[in-house]
Amino acid sequence: LRSKLPHVGTTIFTVMSQMAKDHNAINLSQGFPGFDSDPKLLELVAKYTREGFNQYAPMSGVPALQDVLSAKTARCHDYEPDPETEISIVSGATEAIFCAITAVVKPGDEVLILEPAYDSYEPAILLSGGIPIHIPLKKGDFSIDWERVISSVTFKTKAIVINTPHNPSGYVWSSSDLDHLAQLIRDRNIFVISDEVYEHITFDERKHLSLIGHEELREKSFVCGSFGKTFHVTGWKVGFCIAPPELMEEFRKIHQFVTFSTVTPIQHALAEYLKTPSNYESVSEFYQKKRDFFCQGLKTTGLEFSPAQGSFFQMASYGHLSDISDKELAERMTKELKVACIPVSAFYHNGQDHKFIRFCFAKEDSELQEALGRLEGLK
Amino acid sequence: LRSKLPHVGTTIFTVMSQMAKDHNAINLSQGFPGFDSDPKLLELVAKYTREGFNQYAPMSGVPALQDVLSAKTARCHDYEPDPETEISIVSGATEAIFCAITAVVKPGDEVLILEPAYDSYEPAILLSGGIPIHIPLKKGDFSIDWERVISSVTFKTKAIVINTPHNPSGYVWSSSDLDHLAQLIRDRNIFVISDEVYEHITFDERKHLSLIGHEELREKSFVCGSFGKTFHVTGWKVGFCIAPPELMEEFRKIHQFVTFSTVTPIQHALAEYLKTPSNYESVSEFYQKKRDFFCQGLKTTGLEFSPAQGSFFQMASYGHLSDISDKELAERMTKELKVACIPVSAFYHNGQDHKFIRFCFAKEDSELQEALGRLEGLK
Ligand SMILES: CSCCC(=O)C(=O)O
Ligand SMILES: CSCCC(=O)C(=O)O
Repeated sequence: LRSKLPHVGTTIFTVMSQMAKDHNAINLSQGFPGFDSDPKLLELVAKYTREGFNQYAPMSGVPALQDVLSAKTARCHDYEPDPETEISIVSGATEAIFCAITAVVKPGDEVLILEPAYDSYEPAILLSGGIPIHIPLKKGDFSIDWERVISSVTFKTKAIVINTPHNPSGYVWSSSDLDHLAQLIRDRNIFVISDEVYEHITFDERKHLSLIGHEELREKSFVCGSFGKTFHVTGWKVGFCIAPPELMEEFRKIHQFVTFSTVTPIQHALAEYLKTPSNYESVSEFYQKKRDFFCQGLKTTGLEFSPAQGSFFQMASYGHLSDISDKELAERMTKELKVACIPVSAFYHNGQDHKFIRFCFAKEDSELQEALGRLEGLK
Repeated sequence: LRSKLPHVGTTIFTVMSQMAKDHNAINLSQGFPGFDSDPKLLELVAKYTREGFNQYAPMSGVPALQDVLSAKTARCHDYEPDPETEISIVSGATEAIFCAITAVVKPGDEVLILEPAYDSYEPAILLSGGIPIHIPLKKGDFSIDWERVISSVTFKTKAIVINTPHNPSGYVWSSSDLDHLAQLIRDRNIFVISDEVYEHITFDERKHLSLIGHEELREKSFVCGSFGKTFHVTGWKVGFCIAPPELMEEFRKIHQFVTFSTVTPIQHALAEYLKTPSNYESVSEFYQKKRDFFCQGLKTTGLEFSPAQGSFFQMASYGHLSDISDKELAERMTKELKVACIPVSAFYHNGQDHKFIRFCFAKEDSELQEALGRLEGLK
């Protein structure tokens, strides 16, 4: 069998989590919480499972969850999507992104990706015969180089994939970024796939600006989100897509043949849990404490960094300390210091090494403390 | 946005289930049980959720579930796949089929489909730029017309999608069918995507013959299965794929970017539940009683049928009673008789109407009884 994705290996997240396990290291690599969710939410899953909500959910989602997500969106972003025609519940944000890209991209279409970028965007584009066009984010703060983005647009540009808050840098889009994007796609037939899985994790009074809240942008955007990231249950694999009806129709044509529908009892549990806004309104505050705690400790390790604006990741550079590649550093840190992280070169299509590593700080303080102590060994 | 799947509407299963709901009809259309699973299995989900198994499962599945599925496969089909390299757990058999097709099919490749066929095969092939080649099953018993299959093979044939026990006809492959298939792909580079989701539902002492149990076939096959169908929990969306290591490697390259991983607490629950063979060994017997009960009642409705050999579906023909299309009949039955079924033309790429409808008999006997009473109105 000749590979459809010859350049793709196992995702870095699987590789590093496995290495962490094999070497008994603290796993700050793959992005998942090291603690559990609210027991109330877990009980709701038990309840709906027991009460017999175990057959196929409707293809586009359990109506109660679509409804409450619509209300939440109105509350957070001042626009109320129609639950029936503009919201689909799918098996994780990864599926949402895959289906949106697959719905839009045809052979020969160019799709803009801002690098460093999450590693699922490019394979999805390639599988549809699209051509990924990689645009580097600005050195330093990983903000968007809009001039470069604009100069990368051609007649073949069909879509752009964006991500805010950004993984791995934590950069959070400003309203000026949104306006630039609106200008870019105005009068052009360019669609936007917006990865907003860290929407509820922003710091220092920053507010997540969803494309849903921007009138011009939402008309051409697939906004992809994740309940797993927001409620500390990454293993449940329930995410969503919000898009205007004409786009959602095409999205569903893909989704219905990719997974058809998504785990029913968990959809019901989330629907009930989401009725209480305080269940998601305090997530940023919770993670800001963790970021502050982690960054405080990081200061004495010799690594350089600016505190993340959002997400549960902290990037750091080590080029002033060592010349080895980020892959080698991540491997040695895992094996010798017993702390696993992600080499950021994995977020570049050509594996460019800018001497950055990424830590996930969604862990118990005691685990972070222990990891920080071990990282002193870097000096 | 120009559609990638212009000929595709909402799947018939969604359409008919919605129509059943709107008209308060008994829903014998979409294939899902009208009763719940073993309370023991439901409690296991509650337990693993509560105990904190809520973060990402490994990309290829929870090892305990891979292990027990390997042991079960050895028990049922006399071949023990390597859990690490030959088994992946995914978000439902639909995802398994989608990923297998996507891993194999490239633009211009021809893929054989035996019609009537489940409606997800063709869109998956089209999305990879493949060309579906439709071969009708034999009139009457829906067995395979091997001469026709063989004469449909060209240099471009890349794969064949097969399905046993067959949806919608219930036909169960014989060992001679397996040998014919082995002969077909021998010395040719043809891969097999085998949809075996009804593996545990066969009647009258028939045994399901998995491609996994056939040495020649398993070397070129992706065998796709579903825990949801076997354990009456179609809404959990947990399925699997078994394939040799070289094929599984390509399968996982797709899966990791489509959904990445599958709902963790449910994987753990299934792993524990599958340790007890009697939990799956009695499924055929359970459904055979339902088939017999349903067929007994069907005799007096005027519909013609031969009892299904497997699956939880019963097809029936009505051409001797009426000239209307199967779509119209299904609609009128739903609205007027208050019993929903599936028009079998939906299983043909060109909507060919052979005057067949399909009932799902995975319902409580009382519900079947009530439906059968209403179907007397057909006369
Ligand atoms: C799907 S595994 C990767 C999780 C994640 O989002 C990350 O670590 O960046
Ligand atoms: C995924 S909905 C369709 C269920 C099914 O297998 C059928 O009804 O044929």
